[in-house]
Amino acid sequence: MKCNVSLQVIPNVPPEEVYAVVDKVIEMIKDAGVTHVVGPMETTMEGELRALLEIVARAQELCLEHGAGRVVSVVKIDYKAGGVTIDEKIEKYR
Amino acid sequence: MKCNVSLQVIPNVPPEEVYAVVDKVIEMIKDAGVTHVVGPMETTMEGELRALLEIVARAQELCLEHGAGRVVSVVKIDYKAGGVTIDEKIEKYR
Amino acid sequence: MKCNVSLQVIPNVPPEEVYAVVDKVIEMIKDAGVTHVVGPMETTMEGELRALLEIVARAQELCLEHGAGRVVSVVKIDYKAGGVTIDEKIEKYR
Amino acid sequence: MKCNVSLQVIPNVPPEEVYAVVDKVIEMIKDAGVTHVVGPMETTMEGELRALLEIVARAQELCLEHGAGRVVSVVKIDYKAGGVTIDEKIEKYR
Repeated sequence: MKCNVSLQVIPNVPPEEVYAVVDKVIEMIKDAGVTHVVGPMETTMEGELRALLEIVARAQELCLEHGAGRVVSVVKIDYKAGGVTIDEKIEKYR
Repeated sequence: MKCNVSLQVIPNVPPEEVYAVVDKVIEMIKDAGVTHVVGPMETTMEGELRALLEIVARAQELCLEHGAGRVVSVVKIDYKAGGVTIDEKIEKYR
Repeated sequence: MKCNVSLQVIPNVPPEEVYAVVDKVIEMIKDAGVTHVVGPMETTMEGELRALLEIVARAQELCLEHGAGRVVSVVKIDYKAGGVTIDEKIEKYR
Repeated sequence: MKCNVSLQVIPNVPPEEVYAVVDKVIEMIKDAGVTHVVGPMETTMEGELRALLEIVARAQELCLEHGAGRVVSVVKIDYKAGGVTIDEKIEKYR
């Protein structure tokens, strides 16, 4: 069953290094092969809940591996009987 | 000074009416004339902080006016000395 | 390594049933035996990241099992090299 | 009409300075005289929507005044016809 999970990572690194760390996380999501949309404040993924939460967990570790002493993340889950897709929500706004 | 404010409204209405209420909020944001990007889990706006928070306040009222007995909203603010734009964050991913 | 994960579930059920479903989730967290603090907008847990995310996943299913056709959740993660505890953040405010 | 607004500020300052900046925000909320509860990941306030959003706006400025080059904030609003109080949600868990 497909759900939507959005992830915003806020790594504690000097201001000028924030985007570089965020890019590493987006690259990892891309490499994971899941359907996703990159937005200005979060990246939304579509897939099976536990698989997406494992990507979320991996993202925390990745931020520490790339120099953050700490990372705060905001994760939003949209979970619906029968599944939910990214397209049903934004197709008309593209 | 420009900042980014993203807004997700979660109106308590029957499941089949959720998107209709969300659309009303997006329409109001559009009518407000602020730069914005509609995403699958939130709409991100760019502009002056207090003007954007007034739009956020108005969105709560709008949900009640359109049948929700209750609405929970998630708002994220990205505020930076010198300002922050949507483009500096997602241009390369478009 | 201990981290903090906060969870807010917003089940799509009639307004008068919202608290009952949220209570089921809090009960499940309690039964899981993890250190946690119940707040007005979220419950914060302390423990190992993947174990807490499994509780988050289980909470989504629980909401559907208790009558929600859909549930939106907001999850916040505070992840720090060396670990982070709930006490170091709120002890002085208790 | 009373609503609930929770605020988490994530100031971009060196790790060892994060709590000091967060404390300044909590102090400002206290000085504002609104009913509030300090939690491990956010402070929840109870009051009139626009008054609370002005506190949220002020918090962003305060973080910059205390050394943050950037601050990301997560704000959650619980807005209900007839009003909503902190007590109706957590009294039984205190």
